[in-house]
Amino acid sequence: MEKKWVFRFDEVELAEKYAGGGWDAVRGLLGGKGANLAQMNRIGVSVPPGFTVTTEACNVYLAADEIFPEGMWEQEIAALEAIEVQTGKKFGDKDNPLLVSCRSGAKFSMPGMMDTVLNIGLNDETAEGMAKLTGDERFVYDSYRRLVQMFGSVVTEIPDETFEEVIQAARAERGVKSDADLTAEDWKSITSTFKVIFRQHAHQNFPDDPMQQLRMATEAVFKSWNGKRAVDYRNAAGIPHDLGTAVSIVTMVFGNMGDDSATGVAMTRNGSTGEKHIEGDYLINAQGEDVVAGIRMTKEISALKNELPDAYTELQDIMQRLEKYFREMQDVEFTIENGKLWMLQTRDGKRTAQAAVRIAVDMVEEGLISKEEAVLRVTPTQVDFFLHPQFDRQEMKKARQEGNLFATGLNVSPGAAFGVVAFDANLAEKWAKDGKPVIMVRPETRPDDVHGMLAANGILTSRGGRTSHAALVARQFGKPAVVGVSALDINLGKRFMSINETVVKEGEWISLDGNTGKVFLGELKTFIPDIKDKWLMKLLAWADEIRKLGVWTNADYPVDAQRARDYGAEGIGLCRTEHMFFEAERLPHFQKMIMTDLPSERREALDELLPFQREDFAGLFTAMDGLPVIIRLIDPPLHEFLPNHVDLLRELSDLKIRIKEAGTLADINELLQNIREKERILRRVEMLREENPMLGLRGVRLGLHFPDLTVMQVRAIFEAACQVAKEGITVYPEVMIPLTSHVNELKIQRDVLEREAKIVMAEQNIRINYKFGTMIEIPRAALTADQMAEYVEFISFGTNDLTQTTFGISRDDAEAGFLLDYLHRGILPDNPFATIDRDGVGRLMDIAVTKGRKVNPKLECGICGEHGGDPKSIRLCHELGLTYVSCSPFRVPIARLAAAHAALKEKK
Amino acid sequence: MEKKWVFRFDEVELAEKYAGGGWDAVRGLLGGKGANLAQMNRIGVSVPPGFTVTTEACNVYLAADEIFPEGMWEQEIAALEAIEVQTGKKFGDKDNPLLVSCRSGAKFSMPGMMDTVLNIGLNDETAEGMAKLTGDERFVYDSYRRLVQMFGSVVTEIPDETFEEVIQAARAERGVKSDADLTAEDWKSITSTFKVIFRQHAHQNFPDDPMQQLRMATEAVFKSWNGKRAVDYRNAAGIPHDLGTAVSIVTMVFGNMGDDSATGVAMTRNGSTGEKHIEGDYLINAQGEDVVAGIRMTKEISALKNELPDAYTELQDIMQRLEKYFREMQDVEFTIENGKLWMLQTRDGKRTAQAAVRIAVDMVEEGLISKEEAVLRVTPTQVDFFLHPQFDRQEMKKARQEGNLFATGLNVSPGAAFGVVAFDANLAEKWAKDGKPVIMVRPETRPDDVHGMLAANGILTSRGGRTSHAALVARQFGKPAVVGVSALDINLGKRFMSINETVVKEGEWISLDGNTGKVFLGELKTFIPDIKDKWLMKLLAWADEIRKLGVWTNADYPVDAQRARDYGAEGIGLCRTEHMFFEAERLPHFQKMIMTDLPSERREALDELLPFQREDFAGLFTAMDGLPVIIRLIDPPLHEFLPNHVDLLRELSDLKIRIKEAGTLADINELLQNIREKERILRRVEMLREENPMLGLRGVRLGLHFPDLTVMQVRAIFEAACQVAKEGITVYPEVMIPLTSHVNELKIQRDVLEREAKIVMAEQNIRINYKFGTMIEIPRAALTADQMAEYVEFISFGTNDLTQTTFGISRDDAEAGFLLDYLHRGILPDNPFATIDRDGVGRLMDIAVTKGRKVNPKLECGICGEHGGDPKSIRLCHELGLTYVSCSPFRVPIARLAAAHAALKEKK
Repeated sequence: MEKKWVFRFDEVELAEKYAGGGWDAVRGLLGGKGANLAQMNRIGVSVPPGFTVTTEACNVYLAADEIFPEGMWEQEIAALEAIEVQTGKKFGDKDNPLLVSCRSGAKFSMPGMMDTVLNIGLNDETAEGMAKLTGDERFVYDSYRRLVQMFGSVVTEIPDETFEEVIQAARAERGVKSDADLTAEDWKSITSTFKVIFRQHAHQNFPDDPMQQLRMATEAVFKSWNGKRAVDYRNAAGIPHDLGTAVSIVTMVFGNMGDDSATGVAMTRNGSTGEKHIEGDYLINAQGEDVVAGIRMTKEISALKNELPDAYTELQDIMQRLEKYFREMQDVEFTIENGKLWMLQTRDGKRTAQAAVRIAVDMVEEGLISKEEAVLRVTPTQVDFFLHPQFDRQEMKKARQEGNLFATGLNVSPGAAFGVVAFDANLAEKWAKDGKPVIMVRPETRPDDVHGMLAANGILTSRGGRTSHAALVARQFGKPAVVGVSALDINLGKRFMSINETVVKEGEWISLDGNTGKVFLGELKTFIPDIKDKWLMKLLAWADEIRKLGVWTNADYPVDAQRARDYGAEGIGLCRTEHMFFEAERLPHFQKMIMTDLPSERREALDELLPFQREDFAGLFTAMDGLPVIIRLIDPPLHEFLPNHVDLLRELSDLKIRIKEAGTLADINELLQNIREKERILRRVEMLREENPMLGLRGVRLGLHFPDLTVMQVRAIFEAACQVAKEGITVYPEVMIPLTSHVNELKIQRDVLEREAKIVMAEQNIRINYKFGTMIEIPRAALTADQMAEYVEFISFGTNDLTQTTFGISRDDAEAGFLLDYLHRGILPDNPFATIDRDGVGRLMDIAVTKGRKVNPKLECGICGEHGGDPKSIRLCHELGLTYVSCSPFRVPIARLAAAHAALKEKK
Repeated sequence: MEKKWVFRFDEVELAEKYAGGGWDAVRGLLGGKGANLAQMNRIGVSVPPGFTVTTEACNVYLAADEIFPEGMWEQEIAALEAIEVQTGKKFGDKDNPLLVSCRSGAKFSMPGMMDTVLNIGLNDETAEGMAKLTGDERFVYDSYRRLVQMFGSVVTEIPDETFEEVIQAARAERGVKSDADLTAEDWKSITSTFKVIFRQHAHQNFPDDPMQQLRMATEAVFKSWNGKRAVDYRNAAGIPHDLGTAVSIVTMVFGNMGDDSATGVAMTRNGSTGEKHIEGDYLINAQGEDVVAGIRMTKEISALKNELPDAYTELQDIMQRLEKYFREMQDVEFTIENGKLWMLQTRDGKRTAQAAVRIAVDMVEEGLISKEEAVLRVTPTQVDFFLHPQFDRQEMKKARQEGNLFATGLNVSPGAAFGVVAFDANLAEKWAKDGKPVIMVRPETRPDDVHGMLAANGILTSRGGRTSHAALVARQFGKPAVVGVSALDINLGKRFMSINETVVKEGEWISLDGNTGKVFLGELKTFIPDIKDKWLMKLLAWADEIRKLGVWTNADYPVDAQRARDYGAEGIGLCRTEHMFFEAERLPHFQKMIMTDLPSERREALDELLPFQREDFAGLFTAMDGLPVIIRLIDPPLHEFLPNHVDLLRELSDLKIRIKEAGTLADINELLQNIREKERILRRVEMLREENPMLGLRGVRLGLHFPDLTVMQVRAIFEAACQVAKEGITVYPEVMIPLTSHVNELKIQRDVLEREAKIVMAEQNIRINYKFGTMIEIPRAALTADQMAEYVEFISFGTNDLTQTTFGISRDDAEAGFLLDYLHRGILPDNPFATIDRDGVGRLMDIAVTKGRKVNPKLECGICGEHGGDPKSIRLCHELGLTYVSCSPFRVPIARLAAAHAALKEKK
């Protein structure tokens, strides 16, 4: 049998057989557009007669140095003849000419990336014939010039401006503003001019022969597959380069044949809300482009019911059938030519996050799709939308048009926020207390900025990357944030910031969008989507039925724990105890503990801190009644709790200069005293200072060095647990030892701590179910997890640190520096701090889980790094067989969905 | 058959059969001492009759709550009776009493750790009989009191001082200074007093019954196995606790029976030089203890030839036989009783490093042992001895006695040095040029101190650890160094250092011993062992025949390369190009390159540097003619080449204060200009500053960020290679890209660099054999070595950095801090920066080699971290199948030996 390069729309069964492998293969062979047209034809929807030249033909053409495969052109002519029979028109016939369009269509939609030529078949003769036939000369010559124009730009790559300038000149000459005011004669003359342009650029005459037009258009579409635009798009979208494009040849139909003609677009459901009713726009006596171009005011689709009731009823019916057939909301284009409805295209409809959720859930309830399909149809990003305030799209567009886009940075924490600018944490807190919405702006943030960040509505920094302190805290607390705006110049002294000429003073309003990283001048309105949305709740419940991974949360405060629980968290995977030490009434005690050399003073300070910690933990346990709570013992290096070294040096320098200028003895004495105190602190800071604090005295190393501190923390945990247990709360504390790299650290530290736990339980005369575990955040810990597993009941991957040590990258330094460069240049495929690096970090996790469970089959394995809320990483965690992922409260719903996706994708 | 608990010395065949498994098993059963006594007896050497109670008996006794195993005591009595028959004496007989000693003896020598009781069998009656028999009442009662004293301290743990005080009192009463002046009567009375003391402490009488003495002494030796001293010793020496000790009961013989009696010690070869002649000391008419105690002046063993020629000839003959038999230099104890020679002990003799080498080599040439055995008998530490100047032991002892020990720190680089103290690099260099020996003293060192360190004879710092900059550089250049003397207070301003009250001013003399970490006041004499020692050369040549691992060296300069080659290096495994940038004439260009923002200025600076680098490389290639040279591209972060950040801040602060005090306008202007320049540098330093520079912009990241720099380096490498190749040198350059963590880094960087290499070769019109490779110093690189192996011909483990990232430890911070604590507390068994951590870093290396070679079977795998010179680590490298180890020139001979050991130990 001869190789089949061309399939008529009524040959879809043949195409299916030929392609093998079901609908996906047909789409691969005929492209999305061609396949859907043929499909509509099959189910009895009226589609203008036509055919599709396959992607295979395209690939052979391109591979063979742009020569059509043998037999292809003959098949195309044969298919064209079949159309002539179906339509009763004839290609190139001057009395009753057949016009066709030539459209590209690849397997995956690449909007605007490839080319289309309309009105093929027009030449001077057929144009005249058409004019007679339609009685609308102006429309015909408009169509004709469009053919020449499209042909010119598509086939010979003449810049479109070259043609548009001619039209502009014509408008000017006529003294009219709009193309609509140009006459048939004008278009005729423009067409002539276009042909001259064509000849000049293409060094050949515009082909009068319709067959040659068709041939050249087919070739042009084939070639467009390798056009720069298309290649770039595929690179960006991750579409393979070897798919090729199909070419669909479709009989032209016209919606501008009179008042019984129309053209329009419609969707089977509301794309914004997801409600189940047809939405769309149309125009009577118009062409498809007119609807999109917005030259004339379109009408709501419902009006068609009155204007052309038969066509409307048929459209309604067809749309229902299409949706049922494709099992997905459809977006169609149609044309009514003299009362006859033609469907020109159908495809899956675009929709908002809200609509996506509602449509997926509704379709399950309508019996159209399964729960699993519904869960897979909603993306984690769409769920994220429900969790944060958003700017209205129109507002943002307007602001940009008005020149109010101030800056663009890293979109590190989603959601929208507006407020007055405050340049320090205390002021942010004060203004927030006064009821003002605040955006806190800093070069970068430190732990002692957290109170201001909590009070603010949004956070903006000029330094730092995706896992900078600002980004981490912002995500943790669901605060919209934009960081790393390197162009931003912040003058803390004079209290203003600027980019180039634009200056924003403290107290002035800005708005920032954590979704896009954009910062606007002034106040943009926000709205808050409803997380309790009943469709979302239903969908997430289905996700819970499907997923194998537990979803826990990282939470340090009862309010966060409660929120996470409302969002569906099944435990706390990480409570960072050190955050508690930064609060105003606690920090002095903690600093005292660090500053003293006397064991008695240290113990005294710890005694002061104990009740605070106990209260913190009691709150968490109460909020998580019945669920496990993992509390990590202190982790950061102690110098983080003291003033910054360079700041101290600068302050001292200032004081020493001021003393030179001081007038009175009293002034001098005061300054001297101040200097002495600062020097005392400086000495300690210098003692604690490390070249590479990330790899220094922190985590379990601190616990082994100053056991008093971790012993106090364990006492607080168990006193709290005993206390709330007596109040009837069911409590499962799990104590997590951070940063172990050798099993001996664990052995010793656990021993000391468990002893204290037992003492407390004996004192309180109550038994608590508890576990001890460790964070795996050092490569060596992962490599020796079998040794560790003998001494712990659980391990939890701290993938932030693990990524740093596995890559040898300091994230704070790198994300503001070379890492961005690496991502731009594609040296790294993903930011490893956003998505777990499978080959390196993932491999270590695999080793740890496998080795650990071999020794201790019940070993609970979780993840509590930032990655716990990232869908790709959740997929990996599922594959590795982790017990749970733990993420910030705001990502819990996302993680529930992503975990379900992971389970479903594995099934496949 | 009854279980055998006791073996007579003449039952060694039986013991061998019983133990099974050869001589090692016999030593296990009878202990080293018992086995050797039996062995001597077998080969016809006269050993006083005796027997050994087995280690098995000891273990059963200890396990059974201190009850003798069934039949043991009966066997002991039977063996005693056999002795009585052999000696003709009778245990407890007052006329001709048999006396025995009871000696502990475990499989491995534990000197002084367990107990011995002499003269068992004495009581009031037998003492009288002995006195009659010997006619030496004083000797008998001295022996008697010794029995009571040893019995008291060994059996009932009465502190020895209790007894010694009695003797002191007696001396005082008699008005004599020495025990030798006490009479028989004195000793008799002292013996009585001892018995009273015994009764008071032990709550029982001293046992008069010899059988009871024997029984209790046997038990005491058994129990001593679990004494605290013995347990501690075994823990420290890594001896298992379940071996148990044997008990040897030996007939007492006496060298103090007159002028035909004598006692002495001797070695078969000279323990200092290894020369082959008997060495030893003896005393006529004396007891063994007298020889050791040094109360009387001993005679050279050769004198015995004249005094007791028969005994001497026999001794000579026996010693030859023993050496032949044991195939090792022997150290013996002997006693001559009335002309009859008795051998009391033989064991392997202690020796110096020099002697160890010579003896091992001589024994091969004498046909006594194989080359393999000889190689195994010399330790890497003994080879190290040959490579550094040493202090005379006597000199050091004297200095300590005279109170001149100034400080103790970390012994980071072996060898001894003396010189005048210089507190900065420039002064050190100047004084050294003036011909003064210098010890450079700094709180810690930085790259710009290197010229001073090179000029100095030794280095002393108060901060930093085993892999601090000072330690690394010192080892690299073989400079003796002591670092981390935390008690040392260095006043750079006033140019002195002090510990407590002791002050050393700049220019005063000190001596430091890098072997022990001791620092002395004043000048101690040194001597330099001969590395060209012919025996050592022979031994190392044998090691070369045996080893599988290549031994390469880390060298940056031709002079080091030449030295390493003299020491046997087979290539350069690491040349650190950045060291070259610190030299005085180059640093300004390099700093200019860093400071500028203009590409043209940067290129200009690089052009200035190119000839320097080319010259460096040409020198290395010439020195290594015919051998491979691995050159690592720039690795450290750029800020290391600029002034220190905190120093700059302090200097600026000072300048700003000085400006307040400045008098003239000219002064102010000058200061202002100075401030402006410093601020300019400060800005760049702050731009380059990183939180964790170890994990920051360095290695290949620099190469990708500023390709100009690495391209210049590659050009210099290939220009140099082409140049020397034309001069007839055979050159194998290997370009090493540092700090890769992702294969894409390698792919891109290699591409850029290889292109430059090809350009140079085309320009020079000559082809060079070259390789490209990468350092594996990041866990991710090891985990993905299969990916890397597609783009490189070699990999080299940078185990310093790999250890840091695998452990999450910053060595500079940790070795001055918690790591020491970890080692003291045994949390880490070894310093992972000294010996490769097998379970973590070793595992990663294993993964990398296995995966890498799977993809690229010819992959050259080496190690160039500090560990490359550590014997334990070399063993691991051998097991992993590396191609070579690379270490500092001074460790090349050590590595050659250690690599041979690794190969031999694997064979076993």
